[in-house]
Amino acid sequence: MQALKDRILSEGKNLGNNILKVDGFINHQVDPALMDACGQTFARLFADTKPDRILTAEISGIAPAIMTAKYMQLPVVYARKTKPVTMTADVYLTTAPSHTKAHQVELIVSPEYLRRGERILIIDDFLASGATIQGLVRLTHAAGAELVGIGTLIEKPGEGGREALAHLNIPIHSLAAVELTDDGRILFVD
Amino acid sequence: MQALKDRILSEGKNLGNNILKVDGFINHQVDPALMDACGQTFARLFADTKPDRILTAEISGIAPAIMTAKYMQLPVVYARKTKPVTMTADVYLTTAPSHTKAHQVELIVSPEYLRRGERILIIDDFLASGATIQGLVRLTHAAGAELVGIGTLIEKPGEGGREALAHLNIPIHSLAAVELTDDGRILFVD
Repeated sequence: MQALKDRILSEGKNLGNNILKVDGFINHQVDPALMDACGQTFARLFADTKPDRILTAEISGIAPAIMTAKYMQLPVVYARKTKPVTMTADVYLTTAPSHTKAHQVELIVSPEYLRRGERILIIDDFLASGATIQGLVRLTHAAGAELVGIGTLIEKPGEGGREALAHLNIPIHSLAAVELTDDGRILFVD
Repeated sequence: MQALKDRILSEGKNLGNNILKVDGFINHQVDPALMDACGQTFARLFADTKPDRILTAEISGIAPAIMTAKYMQLPVVYARKTKPVTMTADVYLTTAPSHTKAHQVELIVSPEYLRRGERILIIDDFLASGATIQGLVRLTHAAGAELVGIGTLIEKPGEGGREALAHLNIPIHSLAAVELTDDGRILFVD
């Protein structure tokens, strides 16, 4: 998606160690117009998958997921990383490595909002190693729901996430795929 | 706002101990159409305050804040509760009690996205004791920015948040103000 690529080129920063900083429009400050356009694009890309619900993970997945949900007229559930006092006693819970890999984070969804037989579309900000998304896949399967698609804003193909998810045999779409070079550049790959 | 009140009445749950569960449309699952309508309402209520940027706190403030930002054509910054690896070394940081008051949480904003002289509108999900919002106010003042308004989806007037923020002398709007009775009812107050 050209608008996202343009923004990554103008404002994204290759911080080294394969870390892309997009804090100015996705991960700390959010550009609602850009997220709205990304949501509209996901809605078009996944229209044929006919999901019943969108699933994401707090925190940075919320913005693209809610905009996609708006265009698809669906509810969006975000997996919590800590269990709030309002949540039911029995939950679906899995763990996944944090983005920095320094520790494990929990991903928790209430059975009220993820149900047997439903068609689930996952939307998140990044597809890197795919560890967070694999956690969301486990939650979906634990609920007896069916995964129908995965959409992420930015993919880092070098980290193998797409290969790790290939066995699901469902459409996986990213709006920009980046390669971060050792000399600090950001390249787009097809 | 009638659509929000209707939803609170039909799906909200008074869990006792002054806890309102709205996990089905705000705090775990989000209804994007309802959040869009709330954002449009906030944009109208705060149009005269002419903000430069919207500030919220992760996690549950993100949905209403991004929809408000969309209608006001502004960027939205969400204070992080943990410092990501992409964030600058020097940050604005404050602490606030968690919703359950069991511990303190950090609220962290990068100086890149909160700047001296800017006009800041705070949007969040709940106004209860006002502790989280007071944390956002401290971050705003630490940056040398000016607070111009505070908007929350749901206010619990019994917890004194509005009084704690009154000294700021800025408009404070909530879209629904609730009283949770000991016998499990949800009443709306003006």
